[in-house]
Amino acid sequence: MAISKVSALGIHHESFSFHMVLRPVGISASEGKSLRKFPVISALDWRTVVIGLAADSGCGKSTFMRRLTSVFGGVAGPPKGGNPDSNTLISDTTTVICLDDYHSLDRHGRKENGITALDPRANNFDLMYEQVKSLKEGVSVVKPVYNHVTGRIESPELIEPPKILVIEGLHPMYDPRVRELLDFSIYLDISSDVKFEWKSQVSLSLSLPSLSLSLSLSLSRSLLLWLLVWQRDMAERGHSLESIKASIAARKPDFDTYIDPQKQHADAVIEVLPTQLILDDNEGKILRVRMVMKEGVKYFDPVYLFDEGSTISWIPCGRKLTCSYPGIKLFYGPDTYYSSEVSVVEIDGEFEKLEELIYVESHLNNISTKFYGEITQQMLRHADYLGSNNGTGLFQTVIGLKIRDLFEQIQAEAASKQAITSPK
Amino acid sequence: MAISKVSALGIHHESFSFHMVLRPVGISASEGKSLRKFPVISALDWRTVVIGLAADSGCGKSTFMRRLTSVFGGVAGPPKGGNPDSNTLISDTTTVICLDDYHSLDRHGRKENGITALDPRANNFDLMYEQVKSLKEGVSVVKPVYNHVTGRIESPELIEPPKILVIEGLHPMYDPRVRELLDFSIYLDISSDVKFEWKSQVSLSLSLPSLSLSLSLSLSRSLLLWLLVWQRDMAERGHSLESIKASIAARKPDFDTYIDPQKQHADAVIEVLPTQLILDDNEGKILRVRMVMKEGVKYFDPVYLFDEGSTISWIPCGRKLTCSYPGIKLFYGPDTYYSSEVSVVEIDGEFEKLEELIYVESHLNNISTKFYGEITQQMLRHADYLGSNNGTGLFQTVIGLKIRDLFEQIQAEAASKQAITSPK
Repeated sequence: MAISKVSALGIHHESFSFHMVLRPVGISASEGKSLRKFPVISALDWRTVVIGLAADSGCGKSTFMRRLTSVFGGVAGPPKGGNPDSNTLISDTTTVICLDDYHSLDRHGRKENGITALDPRANNFDLMYEQVKSLKEGVSVVKPVYNHVTGRIESPELIEPPKILVIEGLHPMYDPRVRELLDFSIYLDISSDVKFEWKSQVSLSLSLPSLSLSLSLSLSRSLLLWLLVWQRDMAERGHSLESIKASIAARKPDFDTYIDPQKQHADAVIEVLPTQLILDDNEGKILRVRMVMKEGVKYFDPVYLFDEGSTISWIPCGRKLTCSYPGIKLFYGPDTYYSSEVSVVEIDGEFEKLEELIYVESHLNNISTKFYGEITQQMLRHADYLGSNNGTGLFQTVIGLKIRDLFEQIQAEAASKQAITSPK
Repeated sequence: MAISKVSALGIHHESFSFHMVLRPVGISASEGKSLRKFPVISALDWRTVVIGLAADSGCGKSTFMRRLTSVFGGVAGPPKGGNPDSNTLISDTTTVICLDDYHSLDRHGRKENGITALDPRANNFDLMYEQVKSLKEGVSVVKPVYNHVTGRIESPELIEPPKILVIEGLHPMYDPRVRELLDFSIYLDISSDVKFEWKSQVSLSLSLPSLSLSLSLSLSRSLLLWLLVWQRDMAERGHSLESIKASIAARKPDFDTYIDPQKQHADAVIEVLPTQLILDDNEGKILRVRMVMKEGVKYFDPVYLFDEGSTISWIPCGRKLTCSYPGIKLFYGPDTYYSSEVSVVEIDGEFEKLEELIYVESHLNNISTKFYGEITQQMLRHADYLGSNNGTGLFQTVIGLKIRDLFEQIQAEAASKQAITSPK
């Protein structure tokens, strides 16, 4: 990485001329290379860390992103004065870009070619690669914006290299070149069981005259999230139950072919499953959430419970902590995941009170907190966020802390290298 | 407790005249009070702590006793120059007396009355109470000796008050007066499943021409212990398989009526069960051993694993520790036992190597060791004792440490009381 002088502004930009190349289906990758590349001028006093976050639901992981940016102390919002339909979230330290912005075919184009947005042919991986690489090298880019309401590709926006760049969407680990750029990758895996339960509830809700927020009282928070995401996704096609069903069915083969296999490349997978605390649970309200962490990943020490490397199940509710039915159960142990050695931490059930949360946190190790109770503090600060009472919120927060830790390790290493190569 | 001057010898004895009263079946308890009581002259610089150890197999718990005395640093042996058939074991700190010595009916008498040794009517609880009480008050007693070979009550022996008095046998917690004298009580509970497995193996062994020690190579060590105890018990009646079966059948009702119910009074119960690591195990070689510890017992803090009051299962074999099949599994959790609140620690499986033992020890809490690895050191010192590779040996050692701790707490409390009542 070339290091030049740091300007007063901290970042050098040359020009913003941008050639948006929307390749038709089947265009060769070499043609994509005609894309203008910005000169490499890195004047940052940090090395941009790139995180990939993959999941089915497009770019609906805003809670995860808000938890992540909160760990760094900033508040995330859309780019100032930019495209009002921007999918980007920017905070002091973190920029989250939505990979839907790299659709090479708009909705019309996809319909014409009979392919879904999950199909790699509807996405421009050359541009994705070029721009993520540029940002990682400290160079700003001008990125297209996909408007989820109109389904069209709109006027582009400037993205400056942040300290932490999160690329979230359907394909962050699909292209080997993009994957290679990732310092850390996460796959959010909502099990088909949970999806199905939620889907049934969504169908029920949609049959009501209006989809009001008061539903949140009777539905689980997770369901509500799902519902709102679906509502947004379905806005394009109308709300009918039939169209939802059709859409789900249509997505399944592409999902299995292009999205799901990415999880084998993830450094961490968060699995959302039905609870095992209630026999034959079919409400789907209580979740069992597993964090699968790859071993041997640089800058990443997997979280463990009590005794590293052993297998443990733990029901913290007992004499010192009392929980209501069905309580909480944790599990920790080594496993293999797509022939990789992994460690798994699992939380089944919900936290009802602060005591339960801090008690669980105090027995987790390698969580990269800076002070005792930092996870609990983060969870309380955002108690209104979805999943704050279960493993989804806790593991999202843990991932945030691990990314902060990884960022700091990378900066420290870069600083020590620089000190060696350029002595005073 | 009256405290008089401590003589150079440490103990005052008055006289050894002894009236052995063997009451026939049905004699009233009040008549038993005619027994001579030694005057209370306590000149000891300690308060004798009394431990009760109950189990089915009479006084065959010598391994347990040797582990216990080893914790205190002494070597146990029969009283010097006493009855060669004495059942007593004496070390520097500990005296173990066998409650069979309080049989009021000898073998002939029992046969005549058609009752077993398990029947309370064959035992003199008045004398047991008087003598245990005297010893606890620092007064020596002259105690009868039951000869297990001849089945007769023989010339008595002198028992001086030790620091720790262990009364072991069939009925240490049967009589409420004796029970009240106990500072701590343990019930050794060998499950009928394990007994049955062992019994079958014993039958097999006994059908062989000779019962040699070389059998120990093919049989488990626990089985060998059982075999030797049975061999001794059966010596009286001949070795035939039929007589063993008959004896087992004959004991069962009395065992269930008089022995088994004592466990509800025990402060700690050690349960020996078949392994659950091997599906449908029917070899009975690998044991699952549980230590059930009553909550709220003075001077006794139950052992726990990782997190006091919660429920945990732990398989230590993993990345840091590798174990052969079927490995080791531990469990810890709160429970109720005969409507008492208890904590349970369970070890299923065997230790193959020192690393496994020290690893397990290092994760047990409240074990009352004086230095890191004391349990492992004790277990290694007596690696040739039965059960050194499984939970029986480990829990026996733990109980030894807990008794040492209890002894020291009681002495400290007695010393502080004395300091208050008799200032210089």
